[in-house]
Amino acid sequence: MELREPLRAKAVVCRAIGEPVIVEEILVHPPRAGEVTIRLAACGVCHSDLSATTGTIPFPPPMVLGHEGAGVVIAVGQGTSRFAVGDHVVSSFVSMCGKCRYCTEGRPQLCDQSAKTTVSLPDGSVRTSDLQGRPLGVFAGCGTMAEYATLHADSVIKVDRDMPLDRAALLGCGVMTGYGAVHNAAHVVAGSATAVFGCGGVGLNVVQGCNIAGATTIVAVDTSDEKLALAKRLGATHVVNATQEDNVVKKVRSLTDGGADYSFECVGHGAVVSQAYGALRKGGTAVVVGVAPSSDTTTIRTATLTFDEKTLKGCYFGSSRPPVDIPRLVALYRQSRLRLDELITREYRIDDAPQAFTDLAEGRNARGMVVF
Amino acid sequence: MELREPLRAKAVVCRAIGEPVIVEEILVHPPRAGEVTIRLAACGVCHSDLSATTGTIPFPPPMVLGHEGAGVVIAVGQGTSRFAVGDHVVSSFVSMCGKCRYCTEGRPQLCDQSAKTTVSLPDGSVRTSDLQGRPLGVFAGCGTMAEYATLHADSVIKVDRDMPLDRAALLGCGVMTGYGAVHNAAHVVAGSATAVFGCGGVGLNVVQGCNIAGATTIVAVDTSDEKLALAKRLGATHVVNATQEDNVVKKVRSLTDGGADYSFECVGHGAVVSQAYGALRKGGTAVVVGVAPSSDTTTIRTATLTFDEKTLKGCYFGSSRPPVDIPRLVALYRQSRLRLDELITREYRIDDAPQAFTDLAEGRNARGMVVF
Repeated sequence: MELREPLRAKAVVCRAIGEPVIVEEILVHPPRAGEVTIRLAACGVCHSDLSATTGTIPFPPPMVLGHEGAGVVIAVGQGTSRFAVGDHVVSSFVSMCGKCRYCTEGRPQLCDQSAKTTVSLPDGSVRTSDLQGRPLGVFAGCGTMAEYATLHADSVIKVDRDMPLDRAALLGCGVMTGYGAVHNAAHVVAGSATAVFGCGGVGLNVVQGCNIAGATTIVAVDTSDEKLALAKRLGATHVVNATQEDNVVKKVRSLTDGGADYSFECVGHGAVVSQAYGALRKGGTAVVVGVAPSSDTTTIRTATLTFDEKTLKGCYFGSSRPPVDIPRLVALYRQSRLRLDELITREYRIDDAPQAFTDLAEGRNARGMVVF
Repeated sequence: MELREPLRAKAVVCRAIGEPVIVEEILVHPPRAGEVTIRLAACGVCHSDLSATTGTIPFPPPMVLGHEGAGVVIAVGQGTSRFAVGDHVVSSFVSMCGKCRYCTEGRPQLCDQSAKTTVSLPDGSVRTSDLQGRPLGVFAGCGTMAEYATLHADSVIKVDRDMPLDRAALLGCGVMTGYGAVHNAAHVVAGSATAVFGCGGVGLNVVQGCNIAGATTIVAVDTSDEKLALAKRLGATHVVNATQEDNVVKKVRSLTDGGADYSFECVGHGAVVSQAYGALRKGGTAVVVGVAPSSDTTTIRTATLTFDEKTLKGCYFGSSRPPVDIPRLVALYRQSRLRLDELITREYRIDDAPQAFTDLAEGRNARGMVVF
């Protein structure tokens, strides 16, 4: 199918920082060379979308939100031989050029091109506009919280057609980020002791990533009993409600027989990073997954780095190689080893998307999912 | 030879924190089971010795200083089959039991036993006393800044007899710590860009460790032109005098084409750790080698951990396995690939050891060496 005319699409748009998101009709324009147009089936409402609307992560509005999308390719631009109409795909908020030093050395999550796709496609332009033709930015090069989206093929990953698209959507961000922190950054070994600070959309997937890796002690820490209950279902061996402990670090250290081999910070808050670091045994590694506001700082005692030989390791998008890792997640889901169904707290029609943002902000959702 | 009576020995002793070290006659008692007595040939004056006398690293006086010693075994205790009279050895300030979880997993530098040898042998007692028989502590289980010392065999490494002992002494601490940070902690790859903050006894060996690893950009940063000149002789490709730069981080980033692949903090100061971290490119690793006072803190911007996927990695004693790594250093010295002669700024007779401490404190020495 060749797409010649723009498509009208309902979309979730951030018009101004600090304002509620709105649902409006937009135009999605045909793909240029190297691009694809997708009819979305589902799109997760991620904390990063929320952070973009509040300004915690600085992105300039107006922009179409959404980066955890899954759908079907309905048009391909010239020279886009890796994709065909009918392909099932998920979006990647990291654009991967395949050519820069990071892509070349197997770290596409750090691709230089991604710096250019904060609110546009890699060439700086967009295929999205309002009904008057005024361009609208697309969050993280995606803008998939809309009925249609035109993305660069570098931001799209193919998935097998037997994979339910509302489950596949999760793989594009939260699941990959959490799972990857365990398998690609920490390299958790079976039988080890782990601690997970924060059990939202990412932290829960750290928990199940640790479980899949064979960690035999998995301490989940959060302030919500609901999230901790879900963490238990996904493999946590112990849960700690931080609001009920005088000394969370001490508690985690006692549950891990003197300190965790690996800990994970999934909140994005320097004070929690310090806790995750403090919970380690000698020689342990704390992986920082949470996205903190740019003003946030982390403070640790310098001498503990040397004497206890600890490591503080940042991890972006699960240090993942999406074209390699997302099919692995699909395979794990097929074997019921990776759990996705439990992660979706609630599905929303697009007209109700503003409610999904409210529910996320108020801590009611592990993951809300907009379905089309 | 069996040693039945205590030996009289001149020793460098810290009697009180904040006071100059003194040289006094002590008694060195015969080895018990699992111990050896050494006649020292040389002992380096390390910054950790100085830090113990100033209280920067908290060790309780009185204690015999010295942990970077080399000498000849003159007596062995019962059941000490790994050593024989006449063996040439260096001391290790890390005691390695060979049995704990850290030793077992190939990280003897973190050996649990070491916590028990801050100022004694592993069993909590010492073979060192004043002439009246009152026990004297031994710094880091060694106390090798003395004509004789009795150490546990877990703190002693054999070296080949062709290795000059005053060169071998350096391997027991500063060289191993610096070289090991490069080869065991950072795993620097050939052709990479590195930055070394602080060019004292450890930092200079990071520089030559990077050179041996094949790093093609090695930026050395210090406040002393003399140390920077020596860094150049040992392989630094660029030197930065921090007193002459408005923005050291920016300077290092420009010299490394946008940021170092690996940086090394060899000062023990949180502000310098932040600089080393700031000098990294995306995906880079900062190795913290310097021993900071326990009150010192390091502060970094949390979001840079995630977005730039940086790692802050602590490193103790070069993450070394001394019985494996020290013979490697000897082999590298034999082939003139590891430089040791240049590292010894000055040799001192033991009566002049207080001057060696003064010279170190005043920044005049890369390494002072007490020879016996």
